[in-house]
Amino acid sequence: MTGGYWGKTLRINLTTKEITNESFSDDVLRKYIGGSGLGAYVVARETGADTDPLGPENVLCVMSGPFAGTRAPNGGRYQVVTKSPLTGLLGEGNSGGTFSTKMKYAGIDGIIFTGASDNPVHIVVDNGKVSIEDAGDLWGMDTFELDDVMTERYGKKQCTLSIGPAGENLVKFAAIMNDGKDGRAAARTGMAAVMGSKKVKSITVLGNMKPEVADPEGLREIVKKWSKALAERSEGMRKYGTGEAVEFIEATGDLPVKNWAEGQLPTCGQISGITMTESGLLKKSYFCGQCTIGCGRVVEIKEGPYACEEQAGPEYETIGTLGSNLMVDDLEVIQMGNSICNKMGLDTISAGGAVAFAMEAYEAGVLTKEMLGGKEARWGNAEDIRWLLYAIARREGIGDLLAEGTKAAGQKLGGMAPEFAVEVKGLEFPAHDPRAGSTMALAYATSTRGACHLNANTHPTALTGGTSGHGFYKETEYDRFDFGDATVELTRVYQDANAMMDSMTICKFAMETLGADFMGAYNELFKAICGWDMTTEEFLESGERIVNLKRAFQVRCGVSRKDDRLPPRMTKRRVNGGAGDHVPKVEPMLDLYYDNRGWDMYGRPTKETLERLDLSWVLD
Amino acid sequence: MTGGYWGKTLRINLTTKEITNESFSDDVLRKYIGGSGLGAYVVARETGADTDPLGPENVLCVMSGPFAGTRAPNGGRYQVVTKSPLTGLLGEGNSGGTFSTKMKYAGIDGIIFTGASDNPVHIVVDNGKVSIEDAGDLWGMDTFELDDVMTERYGKKQCTLSIGPAGENLVKFAAIMNDGKDGRAAARTGMAAVMGSKKVKSITVLGNMKPEVADPEGLREIVKKWSKALAERSEGMRKYGTGEAVEFIEATGDLPVKNWAEGQLPTCGQISGITMTESGLLKKSYFCGQCTIGCGRVVEIKEGPYACEEQAGPEYETIGTLGSNLMVDDLEVIQMGNSICNKMGLDTISAGGAVAFAMEAYEAGVLTKEMLGGKEARWGNAEDIRWLLYAIARREGIGDLLAEGTKAAGQKLGGMAPEFAVEVKGLEFPAHDPRAGSTMALAYATSTRGACHLNANTHPTALTGGTSGHGFYKETEYDRFDFGDATVELTRVYQDANAMMDSMTICKFAMETLGADFMGAYNELFKAICGWDMTTEEFLESGERIVNLKRAFQVRCGVSRKDDRLPPRMTKRRVNGGAGDHVPKVEPMLDLYYDNRGWDMYGRPTKETLERLDLSWVLD
Repeated sequence: MTGGYWGKTLRINLTTKEITNESFSDDVLRKYIGGSGLGAYVVARETGADTDPLGPENVLCVMSGPFAGTRAPNGGRYQVVTKSPLTGLLGEGNSGGTFSTKMKYAGIDGIIFTGASDNPVHIVVDNGKVSIEDAGDLWGMDTFELDDVMTERYGKKQCTLSIGPAGENLVKFAAIMNDGKDGRAAARTGMAAVMGSKKVKSITVLGNMKPEVADPEGLREIVKKWSKALAERSEGMRKYGTGEAVEFIEATGDLPVKNWAEGQLPTCGQISGITMTESGLLKKSYFCGQCTIGCGRVVEIKEGPYACEEQAGPEYETIGTLGSNLMVDDLEVIQMGNSICNKMGLDTISAGGAVAFAMEAYEAGVLTKEMLGGKEARWGNAEDIRWLLYAIARREGIGDLLAEGTKAAGQKLGGMAPEFAVEVKGLEFPAHDPRAGSTMALAYATSTRGACHLNANTHPTALTGGTSGHGFYKETEYDRFDFGDATVELTRVYQDANAMMDSMTICKFAMETLGADFMGAYNELFKAICGWDMTTEEFLESGERIVNLKRAFQVRCGVSRKDDRLPPRMTKRRVNGGAGDHVPKVEPMLDLYYDNRGWDMYGRPTKETLERLDLSWVLD
Repeated sequence: MTGGYWGKTLRINLTTKEITNESFSDDVLRKYIGGSGLGAYVVARETGADTDPLGPENVLCVMSGPFAGTRAPNGGRYQVVTKSPLTGLLGEGNSGGTFSTKMKYAGIDGIIFTGASDNPVHIVVDNGKVSIEDAGDLWGMDTFELDDVMTERYGKKQCTLSIGPAGENLVKFAAIMNDGKDGRAAARTGMAAVMGSKKVKSITVLGNMKPEVADPEGLREIVKKWSKALAERSEGMRKYGTGEAVEFIEATGDLPVKNWAEGQLPTCGQISGITMTESGLLKKSYFCGQCTIGCGRVVEIKEGPYACEEQAGPEYETIGTLGSNLMVDDLEVIQMGNSICNKMGLDTISAGGAVAFAMEAYEAGVLTKEMLGGKEARWGNAEDIRWLLYAIARREGIGDLLAEGTKAAGQKLGGMAPEFAVEVKGLEFPAHDPRAGSTMALAYATSTRGACHLNANTHPTALTGGTSGHGFYKETEYDRFDFGDATVELTRVYQDANAMMDSMTICKFAMETLGADFMGAYNELFKAICGWDMTTEEFLESGERIVNLKRAFQVRCGVSRKDDRLPPRMTKRRVNGGAGDHVPKVEPMLDLYYDNRGWDMYGRPTKETLERLDLSWVLD
């Protein structure tokens, strides 16, 4: 057993209600680290092309990492990994809050769910004791209500992860939520629908157990040093949140506007993080479990049509996808949408994409008032956003179609409707435009979970024109419209590094905040916790292994070069905005990228590549 | 009635066997000219998104043009227009030989088929007299056999258009054939399957009627002048056929090799038109009805495994699609495939694409020996090509799947199989690689019938680095890797001009042969025949109208920007060959192209554009 881990992952068979313990060998931990890597390892061994994501044969992993439950700064996230009902491929979502930290305090490293329960169930892990309880009384509750119930039941130290009505209704982009009104979400690729299909309403963890670490004394010093550095270097983030740079982002052409058709939103200053703070909408900053940065927002709207009690405010992605992309330039309207998504358990990114899809289809005459049950879907209209989000979560009327995701909705409507779906491999775009940077284009096209800004996390490099290298890459200037080797190498290495971070389950803002010090800091932390002196090269190799494992799983499911593409909307030149008329040229980069990765012309990892990474088992 | 026309198009209702005459107003003829334009006009008025291409509600037009039956050089082609079973969109095929000329001699301008017959029928038009005969005895015959029967029945002056077993079996890329062993084909987009669905086996035309022309004396002089010019300027073509330039084409990177994965075939000299002539395989050149060029090939193989009696030899497209693209560098093997396609009535281009699909899928392990009924599909293997072509025509075993076209076959096989389908909008690629010239990329992506080299016909401009302008465009140098306005304008104007040529039903080699004299020559001919002094601008406007009419029909069927794309294979950089590592950048050109055409961001002709071209009726 490695420091930072209990060596105790629960395996819960929901069909039989059998609970067993499972641990991983040091070799597996060293290769897959935790979180995303370990989850993918489990799912790839137990599911395949024929697995129905919403069938009992699917396997759902909720995994912490080596840093969770220690005081390692920004190391308390968790990863949910399972076969996605939205993409039909390997899916995963990542969340902060206190769940991962408290799951460790409860004495476990993670939970692997198999089978499916007949009745709704609630799982409790209390200082190592596990129980499966009937949740008939909880089914139907929104995530805020449910968390209040749990606090009443278990006290303030509990932490609950749950699905809302959207997950119960198998909305394909339903989000797993945790920490109640603090609104933390493992949002992407529809993880909550899988939980819903297994009839798991919620998981509550509590306890006061602490995982052992290799060098407690050393760790204390290292934690102090890096926590201080992180806190000192993140004042802007703490004050203004992730939405701080909305105006800069818009100026670069990176902000989504009108379902990605436009390049500018002149009033975007009204929805920036700075405005959120200065206008008094912001009540305070929010810190996740082991966080030293505090990018989270807590807002309150006292009165008016969008009044809401104190709760999580929108982060940058939500400002983009429920704001500018819907032609909304009012923070209160964005918060209304954000709050509905958090309560009902919807991914704000995909839900925003689905609403944008509906609005454009309505404008183009593909969706009619009749098809909307007499309602409308008008750009920028708050009431239309409100009813659409509820209709999706409840699968009412047109919401039932939109709940399938924009790719499926486009295909079902037929004709030109697929035009309005802005997605890769079925996953809707986050709020960064690939036309504003070639590395995002390549990253979206090749990401192992579909259109994802965090799989490579190179948009800051693109938009600022360079990177510190973060201790795992060279310090370099970067031309965001380069479509050659510089972009391919940058994107590939950052994909590997981010796969590693999602496996360590550390926050990516730690990377951005620490800059060139990042990798060194986390090498030190890792050594003090796990006792392993892993080099940066070994970490990157683990990341590479995890990326290739995920790709191999996708290939099993039929993914190949044909799927490594951007949607038609990205072929639309915008003539306004900071990215000029650039359109992404993914195609010229694919061969370079495949060569760089050791993949064949179809985008399949070669036998040699899989062997080099000890992944031969995936071939079987 | 306009000179060059009888004003008598037959309308045959195959369900009721009712035959009526139909003529078009001068206004309609001036706007849609004939052939392709007039056919599209009829089909667009009578079918739509819901029309089943293989149902009795589909309408099939076999249309001549104003020059057919006169002595206007190279003006004796015909166009078949109907809703395509291969693409589900408007489809059309164009053929030479003597059918169009003799259809005019028989006293009619064209035939519009509606409904469907219960029993196989044979249509005879003899000096204006029309009869519908039972064809129970003809059904099942190959096109060579059938033509022999017709010559016995009607004498040597008859000309027959027919479908082979492939058309009877509704193979989605079955070709309508005419002139028996001379092997002329209206090949693309599966026109013969529609004929098969209507149970029309064949149409025989004969007679000695001549359409009146406006200025017989003047015409005689003009014909003499331009026939002489055409004959004098086409010696190479006559001697070596369209395959003359195989080596040059290969050197530019334009030749398809190994299902478009490779950029070079060093032994391609063995399959050039020059080799065909010099080796003695060629018996003589073949001239279509009003032809002065003689690019057609007549070959004979006396002995050996590929022995064949005197018949049509392969033209360039067939050399590419049944040769280099299958890794075949032996002209006799290509001729074997060509002969099977002509007899069975298959489009050599799409059939070659289907065989290439099977070969690559077999190599990649997606098609197994078991799925091939114990047979194999090996690159360059003559016997494998033979059995595959027959299996497709007969819909036997895997042939039944391949007969659906590569797009459908890819989708049905699933997984990575769509990778192997090299098509646009369901139509397989002809033998010109868009990586060798950006104008081909844009033309394939936006062509109104799918991947078509003749809709813009700019590959010679791209490969030679300039154009004479052919009298309708400026004389200009051209950089084949330009992806901006020069390419957009060139492609758009040549699309319009080629739509006009397909409506005049003149041969495109007349354009290439006459160079800058082309438009002037055909303006003169048109005036002498029709009596109308149409300017080049008016001709181009007719072409533009026809392109927009076809696009509007496609839009009705759901086509939009999302469909204006090239297949995944075109994203594959080749590192060998004369096109370097260029991959086509269609995307940056689409907005420029749409703007240039007056189409909206979805690629739909705007209301203003349709109104300007008197196409408002298409909106209804």
